[in-house]
Amino acid sequence: MNKIKPSLAKGTRDFGPEEMEIREYVINIFKNIFDLYGFRSIQTPSIENVDTITGNYGDEGDKLIFRILNSGDFLKKSDENDLKNSVKLKSKISNRALRYDLTVPLARYVSMNQDKLSIPFKRYQIQPVWRADRPQKGRFREFYQCDVDYIGTNSIVCEAEIIDLVYSLFNKLKIDDIDFKLNNRKILQGIAEVNGLSDNFNELCILIDKIDKIGQEKFRDELIKKGYSSKSVKCITEILNYSGTNLDKINFIEKIINDSQIGMQGIKEVKNLLKLSNDFTLDFSLARGLSYYTSSIFEVKSNVSDMGSLCGGGRYDNLTENFGLRDMPGIGISFGIERIFELLKKKKNPVVQIKKNVLLLSYLDLKYLPNCLKIAKKLRNEGISVDLISDDIKLKKQLKYANKNNIPFVMIVGEDEIKSDIYTFKNMENGKQVKNSLNEIITKMKSLSLNE
Amino acid sequence: MNKIKPSLAKGTRDFGPEEMEIREYVINIFKNIFDLYGFRSIQTPSIENVDTITGNYGDEGDKLIFRILNSGDFLKKSDENDLKNSVKLKSKISNRALRYDLTVPLARYVSMNQDKLSIPFKRYQIQPVWRADRPQKGRFREFYQCDVDYIGTNSIVCEAEIIDLVYSLFNKLKIDDIDFKLNNRKILQGIAEVNGLSDNFNELCILIDKIDKIGQEKFRDELIKKGYSSKSVKCITEILNYSGTNLDKINFIEKIINDSQIGMQGIKEVKNLLKLSNDFTLDFSLARGLSYYTSSIFEVKSNVSDMGSLCGGGRYDNLTENFGLRDMPGIGISFGIERIFELLKKKKNPVVQIKKNVLLLSYLDLKYLPNCLKIAKKLRNEGISVDLISDDIKLKKQLKYANKNNIPFVMIVGEDEIKSDIYTFKNMENGKQVKNSLNEIITKMKSLSLNE
Repeated sequence: MNKIKPSLAKGTRDFGPEEMEIREYVINIFKNIFDLYGFRSIQTPSIENVDTITGNYGDEGDKLIFRILNSGDFLKKSDENDLKNSVKLKSKISNRALRYDLTVPLARYVSMNQDKLSIPFKRYQIQPVWRADRPQKGRFREFYQCDVDYIGTNSIVCEAEIIDLVYSLFNKLKIDDIDFKLNNRKILQGIAEVNGLSDNFNELCILIDKIDKIGQEKFRDELIKKGYSSKSVKCITEILNYSGTNLDKINFIEKIINDSQIGMQGIKEVKNLLKLSNDFTLDFSLARGLSYYTSSIFEVKSNVSDMGSLCGGGRYDNLTENFGLRDMPGIGISFGIERIFELLKKKKNPVVQIKKNVLLLSYLDLKYLPNCLKIAKKLRNEGISVDLISDDIKLKKQLKYANKNNIPFVMIVGEDEIKSDIYTFKNMENGKQVKNSLNEIITKMKSLSLNE
Repeated sequence: MNKIKPSLAKGTRDFGPEEMEIREYVINIFKNIFDLYGFRSIQTPSIENVDTITGNYGDEGDKLIFRILNSGDFLKKSDENDLKNSVKLKSKISNRALRYDLTVPLARYVSMNQDKLSIPFKRYQIQPVWRADRPQKGRFREFYQCDVDYIGTNSIVCEAEIIDLVYSLFNKLKIDDIDFKLNNRKILQGIAEVNGLSDNFNELCILIDKIDKIGQEKFRDELIKKGYSSKSVKCITEILNYSGTNLDKINFIEKIINDSQIGMQGIKEVKNLLKLSNDFTLDFSLARGLSYYTSSIFEVKSNVSDMGSLCGGGRYDNLTENFGLRDMPGIGISFGIERIFELLKKKKNPVVQIKKNVLLLSYLDLKYLPNCLKIAKKLRNEGISVDLISDDIKLKKQLKYANKNNIPFVMIVGEDEIKSDIYTFKNMENGKQVKNSLNEIITKMKSLSLNE
């Protein structure tokens, strides 16, 4: 075997024990909340047929799809012409690709299982996706996505439930001071319509979506540059800058887009939502870039962090049309789970200061090992995590091992301890040690886990 | 967009909600047990550099590695010669591959992080791997592996702890009647040595490993065919067929391989283990195919199922040598987690009959929705999972939805209910319905979750 300098593939990460503790803790909170709201977990394979994946993300997106080389003699079906050109050859030698997001696999899954699923289908999915993007700070080639969707319903109850779910989730994560911004694409369509800009609707959405980045000034300049009339520019900027309560905003916009049927439909939807929930900020400057949203759109930011959006989503009319299944409207929200991991690490959020009830069982001589194994069994039967030093090393080194592994308690077993059945119990954080019976130690460790 | 017939890539699977419930329940049991024994979770990326992965699994294994096509104009670095031959071209156009197992990534991880890790490093890892194998019943191209390893220790404590961990785990999974078979490669080496077959050691291990499949008769024939002396054949088959207690077996083999230093070393190791644990069956006919095991080897089967081995593993001398890091012995056990999922599904094991405390909140008219949302909030604050019908459908259809989603309880909200604050509470399993206050319902649902 050749010696190889060990390295990670560019843009990928290992997660060591400390990192995994945070990630798993956060993922469990997500799962518990999704469960509370009646969503159910599914998983789809990492590998999909190329036909399923490509064509959904635009040309730029398609370029970022990781394709898998066919197995065996993959050149079998290629002729000389194919060999001249990467694009041609690609389609001959790779029929499968890595999942690029969780939305397309969901659409495929729903299309394939339409007879089995009970509609509305409420699913969540937390899995990695892969993108051949240029790696940079905070951008990786393999990262987790976390999506929650209702499939097969138009009901405004979904919006109300999603708003409630988002607040419950961030409350559990101790990320407070969040703002749930909501808008409705139909209202934006109404604004375009009354300004004679219906044909420019997608363009307008993309421009509005950029305001946060480029600022109001440049946004105005862009509108003018695109040739929008000064009346339209004035109307649009006035709407986007209007402030007030949700009801104020509704009353204000209603007058402006009164002549647009689709716009008034959007207003009606927001009014219906207001009957069920007022825990959102109606924000006409929210547009969301993705073109498949057709009605409610939303985005959540933390007011105390500069990390950008923590989650976002919206309502779509037809998730599965691409796979030949019509009339499957739905609504989804996607959580920036990697961003949330980072936010919690940075904030030294209390949630990640996980106090674990782990105990290191330490012995002063190898001959006490059989006793230690019995003690370990008793402790583990009580649900207490026990790490047992395997090698015959000095106590000092054992304590160092405890520190390095963030093990908060050490129980020391020596001759006196075994004779008296009273053990040395050391708190690694404050250095204090006391003498306790095994039962006392069990009681202590168990009370710790209850206090978590 | 073109319409596409939705399909899965060959050899891959979707896991729907029912399947996921079983898988996550089982994975949580695994994680809890690993945690109890002081193992810590790590994750490595799905994508590794080709150099890291290839060369570890033999020619046949290497062929099964899924390689990823380089991005962009991947033909840039290829010349005409490369284009004639798949093998040559492959190395030019694909620098990355999908993880084939969890062992090589662990070796890479330990080599890269040797300064940071506290030794012994106790890790577990539960992640999917990919193999371009021909799919068949029970064999998939994407499947989960579950590995637990001690790195950087020679101590026999590891064996004792692993045995204990295995029994705890299968006990929790309610897979009883398991047999932990253990052998020591050094004893097998001793057997080879005293029969003058040291040069044939790997061959002998592979043959012994096949006994279960081919039977004793054919095994004898194979030995004879390989040209082993009739004395050797007699000696080997006698050893493999010897029955008795662990101590009987030790005494028996000790006499035979007394002249082999390595063999006696193996016996010493087993004797040391017997001081700590006797919860295994010493089985000289256990060989394990993999050549990197150097001492203890083990395998666990269930006596009641015909599913073959549920887990197996052994001790190795040098995990990381390939990456230039010497003297990193360790011991690992790999659980056939996919097989265990299947076994639990088949057995209709009580463990997978998960009674969940989910409640469907059902309303008789859309106008009660605001009330329902408030009730849902109260229930969820108490930790009760609530699914809320989003669409205005008839009660009958709502109850059908509950049945289809295995929701065991339905709470019905209508005019009388809201006026009296007393609700109809229906048990979907026995069809019984009673009238209860919200508090009574909360108490009922919470007691259910405690009984789990």
